[in-house]
Amino acid sequence: MNDRAQRAIAECKRIAEMSEEPGRTTRRFLTPPVHRVHELLRSRMESLGMTVHVDSVGNLRGIWKPPDTQSQRLVIGSHIDTVPNAGAYDGLLGVTLALEWVILAQELNLPLPIEVIAFSEEEGVRFGVPFIGSRAVAGRFDPTLLALKDADGATLADAIRDFGLDPKEIGAATLDGDVLGFVEMHIEQGPVLESEGLSVAAVTAIVGQSRLTLEFRGQANHAGTTPMLLRQDALAGAAEWIAAVETAARKTDGLIATVGKIDVEPNAANVIAGAARLSLDVRHADDYTRKAAVESLLEQAQAIAVKRGLALKSIQQMDQPAVPMDERLTAYLVEAIGAAARPEKRMTSGAGHDAMVMAARVPATMLFLRSPGGISHHPDETVREEDVEAALKVGRRFLEILAATVG
Amino acid sequence: MNDRAQRAIAECKRIAEMSEEPGRTTRRFLTPPVHRVHELLRSRMESLGMTVHVDSVGNLRGIWKPPDTQSQRLVIGSHIDTVPNAGAYDGLLGVTLALEWVILAQELNLPLPIEVIAFSEEEGVRFGVPFIGSRAVAGRFDPTLLALKDADGATLADAIRDFGLDPKEIGAATLDGDVLGFVEMHIEQGPVLESEGLSVAAVTAIVGQSRLTLEFRGQANHAGTTPMLLRQDALAGAAEWIAAVETAARKTDGLIATVGKIDVEPNAANVIAGAARLSLDVRHADDYTRKAAVESLLEQAQAIAVKRGLALKSIQQMDQPAVPMDERLTAYLVEAIGAAARPEKRMTSGAGHDAMVMAARVPATMLFLRSPGGISHHPDETVREEDVEAALKVGRRFLEILAATVG
Repeated sequence: MNDRAQRAIAECKRIAEMSEEPGRTTRRFLTPPVHRVHELLRSRMESLGMTVHVDSVGNLRGIWKPPDTQSQRLVIGSHIDTVPNAGAYDGLLGVTLALEWVILAQELNLPLPIEVIAFSEEEGVRFGVPFIGSRAVAGRFDPTLLALKDADGATLADAIRDFGLDPKEIGAATLDGDVLGFVEMHIEQGPVLESEGLSVAAVTAIVGQSRLTLEFRGQANHAGTTPMLLRQDALAGAAEWIAAVETAARKTDGLIATVGKIDVEPNAANVIAGAARLSLDVRHADDYTRKAAVESLLEQAQAIAVKRGLALKSIQQMDQPAVPMDERLTAYLVEAIGAAARPEKRMTSGAGHDAMVMAARVPATMLFLRSPGGISHHPDETVREEDVEAALKVGRRFLEILAATVG
Repeated sequence: MNDRAQRAIAECKRIAEMSEEPGRTTRRFLTPPVHRVHELLRSRMESLGMTVHVDSVGNLRGIWKPPDTQSQRLVIGSHIDTVPNAGAYDGLLGVTLALEWVILAQELNLPLPIEVIAFSEEEGVRFGVPFIGSRAVAGRFDPTLLALKDADGATLADAIRDFGLDPKEIGAATLDGDVLGFVEMHIEQGPVLESEGLSVAAVTAIVGQSRLTLEFRGQANHAGTTPMLLRQDALAGAAEWIAAVETAARKTDGLIATVGKIDVEPNAANVIAGAARLSLDVRHADDYTRKAAVESLLEQAQAIAVKRGLALKSIQQMDQPAVPMDERLTAYLVEAIGAAARPEKRMTSGAGHDAMVMAARVPATMLFLRSPGGISHHPDETVREEDVEAALKVGRRFLEILAATVG
């Protein structure tokens, strides 16, 4: 597996050089360097005997059909767009690993057709909306998205046409019914596997997410002439609530809650804060737990505001349900991890992925690979060769298990 | 006293119209409208038989000498510059009230010479340095200040020359030795008197002030993929410390401590804060108490940082000692308040005033008048007629007491 892991990594590094900007990796949806990525991946797919095409939303899709099988196919894939100044592995590693899984299936003569999809868009950078590629494949592409404009005023429809594709044909990108399920391999983008000394994990669910903005409003006043007990200090109220957010998340298993943004008025050293606006981001794999946590945190904010004579406003900006991965496919993946990479690590994903969108159409699961330092969306993003090898060992076992169910 | 209180207020309102900007009161150091203020005040002073001149830093000074007395004189004054978009009373009321005190002394035939000073600069707006007027009178004017530039590139020396004065003569502005003491009347600019239902108070000290900047530095990370226990959240650490600042100030009598400014990096809803920079402003009338509080708050910040795996940096930007008012003069003022305006309210000033600078040269004290709503540095700044009347009653009694000591 050693040479193969090295190849999967080397290809990511090579593709990282296909960028909109010299010296950094920035590759937004259907920008010119995507042609070069398609060229390289198409040639690799064709050398494996796969039938390749680019669908009308720019997903590169290669199908390998073993001789003499009528089985439904497994779809494997991840995305090839990146954030600005990205690393080499977020998305791409899931594509190069998918090609190695095809080779494994071919070597094992498994009667399992495989489609590899290199999704054109996941990060949401160019048009402010993520998952454009997988939405189309899952049959969830809303045609009104075609009117979205990028920073240069080009619409999504323009971008598709400029790439040589026809936006009117997007409906045809939808996956047909001849599919067993979908697997995505992705770097974890967090510190969990590293902190536990593990190479890989099966993802059981993609967490649901609430996002809110809160504002505490008090009274801006002179920091020297206003005694402590006559203050309506919006920042002191906000600080008390930030501590409550952290406490709540620490005592609820699997709950993560973050205040990442705070803006204070007038934000001057000698003036008591008159207003503080904060963000709240709450995530959990169980929607009930998440919503109860948000409700409790809002009640605590209200109690703090009342106690301090502050006014409180809150706006809910996002309420995205959790997406459980398919139980059967995930169980196969866990079994494969147990056999090939021990122990049988399961975890939730705290971030969204194409698998979340694909799960609306087909049984879907994910395999996470350790992120050294938990670093992603940064040029320092990396991956360990031993973890890529583990993903290949798990893949071999997973494909064998899956082929046995269809054989 | 009723007519006189109305006159003192009406003059403030009239002078508020002498502004650099139509429709708002903005009157910075030695800008053109100051000529009109001088004209009005000079004519009032001359009508009271006072000898008037403008010193070389632009202070308007009128001396009333009763016949047949060799007594040292009392100096009374406040400033005539304002912040941008100011109210009518901050500074000015101390000047118009001083003129009413002169009238009271004349009516009572007190053998007490009085100098009224309308200080040219206190707010620090035009040249970024406050107390320019009183520094010169107190003999504390550093000639290097003459090179300071305003926003238009004019130096302080230019401003003085453009006003028709000679910056080389600033030394002559210094108060001679023939002075009993200095009294400043000023609106409180805080909510204390209003909260206690009182008109006036004697100021016992101007608090000392520490100002610091602190930085907690952790690790910016994905808010979705980083579990609570693997975070180094700089904002959560900062919030814990802001609460500690408030707690410390609430439990120490007379201590005020404020975090008014916070800047977080990257300040995004879905990213754990990697750094948080905060201001700390601590004030107390007792320097030892203030310094001990700062030291304890820095120790608590360090403990929070260690516990959370954050790095802490702190920079002290200001360490200004408290300035006690003169005990004897203040005792006379308290006695006068007890006799004329009950009860004998004493308080500290949380903000700097000209009296703080004057105290370096002569015995100094201050009389605070209630600030409705605690509002100042704002067009809504106001004053109650009954409080101005109280200041006049206190003035009559105070001048009688003082005259008796020199009589």
